[in-house]
This record gives sequence, C-alpha cells and structure tokens, in this order.
Amino acid sequence: MATETIQANVLTADDLLKHWQGHRKLTRRTIAAFPEDQLFQFSVGGMRPFAAMAWELIRMAVPITEGVTTGKWEEYKGPQPTTKDELLRAWDEQTMELNDKFGQIPPHRFREVDKAFGKWETPGMAAIQYAIDNEVHHRGQAYVYLRVLGIEPPPFWERD
Amino acid sequence: MATETIQANVLTADDLLKHWQGHRKLTRRTIAAFPEDQLFQFSVGGMRPFAAMAWELIRMAVPITEGVTTGKWEEYKGPQPTTKDELLRAWDEQTMELNDKFGQIPPHRFREVDKAFGKWETPGMAAIQYAIDNEVHHRGQAYVYLRVLGIEPPPFWERD
Repeated sequence: MATETIQANVLTADDLLKHWQGHRKLTRRTIAAFPEDQLFQFSVGGMRPFAAMAWELIRMAVPITEGVTTGKWEEYKGPQPTTKDELLRAWDEQTMELNDKFGQIPPHRFREVDKAFGKWETPGMAAIQYAIDNEVHHRGQAYVYLRVLGIEPPPFWERD
Repeated sequence: MATETIQANVLTADDLLKHWQGHRKLTRRTIAAFPEDQLFQFSVGGMRPFAAMAWELIRMAVPITEGVTTGKWEEYKGPQPTTKDELLRAWDEQTMELNDKFGQIPPHRFREVDKAFGKWETPGMAAIQYAIDNEVHHRGQAYVYLRVLGIEPPPFWERD
C-alpha cells in the first residue's frame, strides 16, 4: 500500500456517527415492519426472535459509547421492552442519547485500548465498529424472518 | 458534538482495509461452511441461495475499489463460479487484488463524489462502506440458512 494512502484519514467521528445513525434508522424501520406478536415470538432455524436481537443492540449502543468516552463500562439500566411501542421508544431514546454522547468521546479514546465491560481488550473504535457490524448482521437476519412472513423488508440502501 | 470530537480522524485507509479483510475472512468461512449443493440451491423465504449473494459481493469488492481509484466503473469480468471451489478461488483472488489495489486509491478520492457504475452519486468512502455493509448484511442471512440446515455458523467475532 502506498504510504500516502495507508495514512489517509478516511472517516471523522462525525462521519461515523452519521453512518451509524443511518443504519439505526433502517433498523428502526425493520423493527416497525414486524407485526407485534411476531416481533417477539417468530424466528427461523431456532434463532432468537428479532425483539431479542434488537434488545441486544440497545444494550450495546449507548453503553459502548459511554465506555469509550469514560472508561466506565456499565450495563444498560432500562427495563427490557415487552411491547413493540416500548422497544421503539427505547430505540428512539438511544438515538437522541447517541447524538448527545458521541460528541463527548475524547479523540484519543478511539485508538486507546481498553477492556470493554471488563472482558474484551479493544481499541474504542473497534468496539464501536463491532456494535455497528453486529446491528447490520442481525438486521440482515430479520430480513429473512420478514421474507418468511411474506413481508417486504425496508430497502437496504435507504438510510434517511 | 464537541468540535474537537467532530473532526477527530477515527479511521485510516489501512484500518479500513484491515477491517474489510477481517470481514472477508469471516465471509469466506461462511461460504466454506455450506455443503456444495446447498450453497448453490438452498434458501429460505424465497431469497437467493448464498452462492448468488457471494457472487454479488465478488462483483462489488474489486470493481468498487477500482472505480474509487480511477473513476472508471467497470463490471467484474471473471466468469460466474459454478462450484464451491471456483467460488472460493474467485474470493481468494479478490482478497489479494484488494490488498494490491486498495493502496492505490488517491487519498482525495475517499471524499470525492463520483457516479458509481454510471448510476449512484456517492463519495468513494460511502461506496466502500456500502460494499462492506452489504457483505455483513447478506452474510447474516447466510447464518440463518446455516442454522436451518443444522450447521453451526462460524463465530461472528473472529476475523483472523
């Protein structure tokens, strides 16, 4: 790789937040596409229902952002949603919290290695990328669930 | 967002290539986990078999990288794989090509807006992110296929 290209900065924190929030909008539409009972009960191949996956995503997004910011890795404290409305409300609260909190990440913390939740040695940036990738991964699985249910998933390329 | 954080550079071209190649290693393991006939024929919910999705990924990775590098958006020219071995071989060729070609992307092209394949107005970086996200999305779907087939998918968090 040419040295100039290796070192080129290709993403700012602001770009990263916008990219994530674009994915989060699509994931919200994916949650909303499920009928309530199937959101909490339907699955394929013995996997978890999509509500359980979305709950995992909620337990990662702001807690990881706060951990990268402060070095304190604390579990999400809110109650586990039991209805589609509660799930979407928790999602929307995190959308606002992320916008507030992402900007408080000290720049050096993106590269600094920390022990996330006392378990995983990772630079802050890799922890955030993992949260985003995990969201895309599970949302892709929700697309299969929706197809089996005969429901058209939201367009993958729309992020606004 | 604090101005300092907004502008913080959180990813270099080298980081991005490593992140992508880590995903590509996992996708290769996912392809390899399928029995040959099911790779090309099995699907869930009327979706495409995973071989067809992997073929889409092959038609994106190097062509997008070359388009971002040169401004010339040309279709992948190799033949469509019809066996698992051919698919894995095309995958491995792209892994090497990406390592060679990614380093030739002129740094300014990551932010420059171009018309990818004559159709999609996008900065180079967004085109590359789309290719990676699309890979994660479809690989997540392949995990569902594997579960339905009773096959344990490769661990999501392993990228080496």
